Amino acid sequence: QGILERLDAGEIVIGDGGFVFALEKRGYVKAGPWTPEATVEHPEAVRQLHREFLRAGSNVLQTFTFYASEDKLENRGNYVAEKLSCQKVNEAACDIAREVANEGDALVAGGVSQTPSYLSCKDKAEVKAVFRKQLDVFMKKNVDFLIAEYFEHVEEAVWAVEVLKESGKPVAATMCIGPEGDMHGVTPGQCAVQLVKAGASIVGVNCHFDPDTCLETVRLMKEGLQAAKLKAHLMSQPLAFHTPDCGKQGFIDLPEFPFGLEPRIVTRWDIQKYARKAYDLGIRYIGGCCGFEPYHVRAIAEELAPHRGFLPEASEKHGSWGESLSMHTKPWVRARARKEYWENLKPASGRPYCPSMSKPDGWGVTKGARELMQQKEATSEQQLKELFQKQKF
Amino acid sequence: QGILERLDAGEIVIGDGGFVFALEKRGYVKAGPWTPEATVEHPEAVRQLHREFLRAGSNVLQTFTFYASEDKLENRGNYVAEKLSCQKVNEAACDIAREVANEGDALVAGGVSQTPSYLSCKDKAEVKAVFRKQLDVFMKKNVDFLIAEYFEHVEEAVWAVEVLKESGKPVAATMCIGPEGDMHGVTPGQCAVQLVKAGASIVGVNCHFDPDTCLETVRLMKEGLQAAKLKAHLMSQPLAFHTPDCGKQGFIDLPEFPFGLEPRIVTRWDIQKYARKAYDLGIRYIGGCCGFEPYHVRAIAEELAPHRGFLPEASEKHGSWGESLSMHTKPWVRARARKEYWENLKPASGRPYCPSMSKPDGWGVTKGARELMQQKEATSEQQLKELFQKQKF
Amino acid sequence: QGILERLDAGEIVIGDGGFVFALEKRGYVKAGPWTPEATVEHPEAVRQLHREFLRAGSNVLQTFTFYASEDKLENRGNYVAEKLSCQKVNEAACDIAREVANEGDALVAGGVSQTPSYLSCKDKAEVKAVFRKQLDVFMKKNVDFLIAEYFEHVEEAVWAVEVLKESGKPVAATMCIGPEGDMHGVTPGQCAVQLVKAGASIVGVNCHFDPDTCLETVRLMKEGLQAAKLKAHLMSQPLAFHTPDCGKQGFIDLPEFPFGLEPRIVTRWDIQKYARKAYDLGIRYIGGCCGFEPYHVRAIAEELAPHRGFLPEASEKHGSWGESLSMHTKPWVRARARKEYWENLKPASGRPYCPSMSKPDGWGVTKGARELMQQKEATSEQQLKELFQKQKF
Amino acid sequence: QGILERLDAGEIVIGDGGFVFALEKRGYVKAGPWTPEATVEHPEAVRQLHREFLRAGSNVLQTFTFYASEDKLENRGNYVAEKLSCQKVNEAACDIAREVANEGDALVAGGVSQTPSYLSCKDKAEVKAVFRKQLDVFMKKNVDFLIAEYFEHVEEAVWAVEVLKESGKPVAATMCIGPEGDMHGVTPGQCAVQLVKAGASIVGVNCHFDPDTCLETVRLMKEGLQAAKLKAHLMSQPLAFHTPDCGKQGFIDLPEFPFGLEPRIVTRWDIQKYARKAYDLGIRYIGGCCGFEPYHVRAIAEELAPHRGFLPEASEKHGSWGESLSMHTKPWVRARARKEYWENLKPASGRPYCPSMSKPDGWGVTKGARELMQQKEATSEQQLKELFQKQKF
Repeated sequence: QGILERLDAGEIVIGDGGFVFALEKRGYVKAGPWTPEATVEHPEAVRQLHREFLRAGSNVLQTFTFYASEDKLENRGNYVAEKLSCQKVNEAACDIAREVANEGDALVAGGVSQTPSYLSCKDKAEVKAVFRKQLDVFMKKNVDFLIAEYFEHVEEAVWAVEVLKESGKPVAATMCIGPEGDMHGVTPGQCAVQLVKAGASIVGVNCHFDPDTCLETVRLMKEGLQAAKLKAHLMSQPLAFHTPDCGKQGFIDLPEFPFGLEPRIVTRWDIQKYARKAYDLGIRYIGGCCGFEPYHVRAIAEELAPHRGFLPEASEKHGSWGESLSMHTKPWVRARARKEYWENLKPASGRPYCPSMSKPDGWGVTKGARELMQQKEATSEQQLKELFQKQKF
Repeated sequence: QGILERLDAGEIVIGDGGFVFALEKRGYVKAGPWTPEATVEHPEAVRQLHREFLRAGSNVLQTFTFYASEDKLENRGNYVAEKLSCQKVNEAACDIAREVANEGDALVAGGVSQTPSYLSCKDKAEVKAVFRKQLDVFMKKNVDFLIAEYFEHVEEAVWAVEVLKESGKPVAATMCIGPEGDMHGVTPGQCAVQLVKAGASIVGVNCHFDPDTCLETVRLMKEGLQAAKLKAHLMSQPLAFHTPDCGKQGFIDLPEFPFGLEPRIVTRWDIQKYARKAYDLGIRYIGGCCGFEPYHVRAIAEELAPHRGFLPEASEKHGSWGESLSMHTKPWVRARARKEYWENLKPASGRPYCPSMSKPDGWGVTKGARELMQQKEATSEQQLKELFQKQKF
Repeated sequence: QGILERLDAGEIVIGDGGFVFALEKRGYVKAGPWTPEATVEHPEAVRQLHREFLRAGSNVLQTFTFYASEDKLENRGNYVAEKLSCQKVNEAACDIAREVANEGDALVAGGVSQTPSYLSCKDKAEVKAVFRKQLDVFMKKNVDFLIAEYFEHVEEAVWAVEVLKESGKPVAATMCIGPEGDMHGVTPGQCAVQLVKAGASIVGVNCHFDPDTCLETVRLMKEGLQAAKLKAHLMSQPLAFHTPDCGKQGFIDLPEFPFGLEPRIVTRWDIQKYARKAYDLGIRYIGGCCGFEPYHVRAIAEELAPHRGFLPEASEKHGSWGESLSMHTKPWVRARARKEYWENLKPASGRPYCPSMSKPDGWGVTKGARELMQQKEATSEQQLKELFQKQKF
Repeated sequence: QGILERLDAGEIVIGDGGFVFALEKRGYVKAGPWTPEATVEHPEAVRQLHREFLRAGSNVLQTFTFYASEDKLENRGNYVAEKLSCQKVNEAACDIAREVANEGDALVAGGVSQTPSYLSCKDKAEVKAVFRKQLDVFMKKNVDFLIAEYFEHVEEAVWAVEVLKESGKPVAATMCIGPEGDMHGVTPGQCAVQLVKAGASIVGVNCHFDPDTCLETVRLMKEGLQAAKLKAHLMSQPLAFHTPDCGKQGFIDLPEFPFGLEPRIVTRWDIQKYARKAYDLGIRYIGGCCGFEPYHVRAIAEELAPHRGFLPEASEKHGSWGESLSMHTKPWVRARARKEYWENLKPASGRPYCPSMSKPDGWGVTKGARELMQQKEATSEQQLKELFQKQKF
């Protein structure tokens, strides 16, 4: 059954987790560029991660094609080599995803994301051509449906949806925005309306913010759709990091991004709460983004198992709510084998010399950092700011 | 070259990371039992993790035989089935480790750890028979050397070393103790002396405590050996969790163990500091235990690269000290592409409603938890305590 | 010169600090009732606190008549005794304030605050009669001007202003609201407009929120007045507690209120930042409320000394920005004798087992607390809620 | 009854709180010098603070003669003026304390503390002469007993006790040390033994550390006395600040000292726990030092009221364990009117951008601070260090 058949029937569809962060930690993706050439260089590593998400309960395997547009790959180094061409990287991603999907009952979704072309002010036709190049591969490899994800500007997201709709396949669209809306100030409700009008059957958010913030943003999207009397399925794929201190542009601006985020990683219990809230809000496509590891996806599947009637394969290695501790030799560890314990735990950071929140960087960046930038770049802050506005980044 | 040749020549030997925690998150190991039947059930997952550690710089691949003694496997469920017999699990572990070791230049180490037989007061002969059963497999599969690890009682560790020495292969021995010593109050210095006298060529600590605490314990071991005029190589394989609030028995007693430890996970920069301190202390076998992911091992290799003259393979996907951020589109993120930034960052937890330290459980356990135990177990606290003392757990 | 002459001339007027909290800690006021019978019982303690504020730089001494309305005093116990009658308490308050004011150049302001009569739904005439009773004393004792303060409902505040205006003396009015407005949802801007139309020459906020939140609320009041083309002087008298985690009703709902607020107490440097921001926002009547001790008021006077041209008397015992440490015997303490040090210090709580923020109580109160209330009160939550809405408390 | 009669009879004696910190906040003492010239300049302020402690339950009023030795007063400015001579300051202190003591049933204790003469290496005779000068005043004014307090070096404390013993009055001696002992490494147990042998009838600690740390130090003193078969009454007067992160020299070295300590201030409930632990440890002279306000002293008296049979006067304005909240209008605030609530509250700091612990300064001081010192002082770190060792400061 296709994605829309499942959602229309009221099924819960569980997404997968974050590839670039997980594979960065495993040694296959470089932070900064975040490009997915591992599909060609180390297919076994990509395959294994897909398999772990499948076992954890994912109903959709997204092709590992994040930042795999041609302009991004070129921009990011010497990936122009034939071996790592845009086409090769995307094709390999499709092949691996399909191979693992066939080990279970999962769908394969081809994904596109925001492009350097848009950020550097190329025109609509040029940007659409970039998306079309990836779409050609997805069609050749016959993915099950398409996702336009990680867009900060609704204008570009709409262009992406328009291109993907040319395929005739179902299209989902998620933006990496918070309750304040996109980078031009378009509200979440307005974004959702534009995406649905452009042809998306499923809309929502991914990345940049923690589960609570993402759910609030999807709630605003839902309100916007209701007000416009439009119908669409809702989707959320948040970070697996706590980010209550984010500004408008999300976790990128936090001083801990990307190499000091560890203390913010959410627990499996945080994810169970997220899955419950997402479900109660009417979201039926529930997954994750950066930071989501297989056990986080399993937590979604376990929380919603009563509604779905089954547990994922990986739950064979997991006692619900810690019940596997009931055989521990120490009685006080056995005492942790219960839902109430983990639900109410306020986990300590073990870092008494660190704060609990940070001020995000940005144009309100600290003087020291600003000076450093200037030395490095030999540009005034005003120049930087203009550059920023012009580039839309 | 064998392990002792390398260490005797002054080489740095990098160990690997924590299998049970990493594979629990990937969906292949059950927390509580923590047994390694995945070697038979899902060899591809074990192989992939070995490979990631190899790429990250590990010079030793430990067979995934933690808690794979026959008494533990039986104790922990229905692993008596032929398919998951002690012999099958250990043999598969050896085969996988060797296969991956051959992809590079790594040694294979067969490992044994503390046994339920000892904890339930079986006698020396019985306990030794348990170790010998695993050793038989290691000899048949011809591992390069042997490790006795994760012992809370030096008495049992000594028995393990004695058995392993029968093989004629080099033996390393690490205990999961802190500066207060083993569960019977034997100091780290005395433990080290006993282990070396029993035949260990390499001694140190693993698991249970964070890097700083482990290094302090190894320092005490070193002092003990010097005072006794004994020579041995030093080894440390700590947790990748911050645990300044631990009691004598380490992170097991922290309320967050094992499903709420996320905010305690150390960063790669914490590990670089650890590697530096370990090196300065004279430790030359430097690895990790629970919580150590491949990128943590890579951080050891990167910190010590100036001494070793080379970087590990996985550093192709990692800019030293964040330099890969220097091409980021946002200037304030580019400003993070420098050592001083990451060295001094005090990462926020994003959890303002949580504390930074916890009180460990134990016999000073909270009243609520104690009541719960009692209901469950229908034993008085006194009975529990006696049970505890009798069982040595 | 009177209060309006001073403000009209562009002078900065420094208010005083919080009497009920300071005298509670000194042993003269009971938390809960918070009534000021100390003016009769222990005039020397009240006099001393006035004197400390005067020395610290206060230009206004408010009569200690908070919660000294007749209905409050009666409501709160056996203060009906002739000796502690409403009239006696208010008269003594006026006498003490005037006595100390004459030691310097300060004005005396008579103050009224919200009444039980309003909260229990008495009508306008009855509530006004309560205010008039206090006003009679203020007129008899000839205070310099009048303040209506600590109102959660703008309706009652307007009634208070109308009564006070009958006297012909200048009237200031402050509400204990945050940016979300009063308990009926009237915005800060609308509140300010109503108060000015009712006759207040000075408007602003006091109590319930920390300095930053109060300044934001006054900013909204200023915008409201500008939009309505009304003119008034602005005033702020915030808490000296950090309350970033407050809900709409302020610090009362925080779990720490009132006996666990210590870790939230602001430093003198926090107050210097507050004074600067208040000044920059155009506020010229700058003081404090609960938690403000004499040294906090001195910090306002020191920060604004460049504009005023003089320091307060108590600065004889205070080196600006810690300069008095420059003679300390330890060099590292001497190194703290500078503005940059104190401005940038992030002071630690010394409480690693405590969080940094709390969830406010209220109707989203914890289940446990709710059960306790119900046992105590034998009322259902619904009844409590209705009671709450009816009583306006 | 004298101090020894009371203690010998098993009575609990409650000390007073910290004058220099309380009067600094009230505007009468300058941080840095910390000298008590307020006894002459503003006797009403000193009198009022004595009175508040008396009402709170203090059985001893210490003359406000901290740092009132002649060498300190001269060292600290132009206090040589006749009006602020050592004699005048000490005499006024005695007069004020006696006046207030007579309002109740309190004893007056004359106090001496460590001297610049000792720290700058004057000889025994010179240092003793300094103490004798203050003692002369105490004898003239006929105080009830004597306290030698705030000594970092047991050698100097012994000299002080020897001088004070010349008077024939009972002598108490407290050192400002932690469990690591005095600045020359003399253990708490050895310090106690030396002080008792020198003639002290009461020994213990004051200042520099939080209640828990002080109690641990007194426990070590008790053990030392028992081992030496010596008898003495025990005394503790700790800080009212949480300082788990202190080094050997206590809170002076914390970066927050002295102007950023607010988040560390202990609650009344912390003090009740302290009083209980002190009592259980056998300490019968229980008071406080810097940071102790009258309500903290009242908390001691309330906790120990069951043993003493009465409450202090100031408890008329305090409901035990928050019971005064039982009449609050909001039900969730009423729910706080109980012991269990306040006993278990983990108060939030309201400062999510601040850490919970600090690294102490000192010779492990940060590089930045060290550089600053050096610029200021034009001395090398080595010179500073030598200066430090020579001066004993």
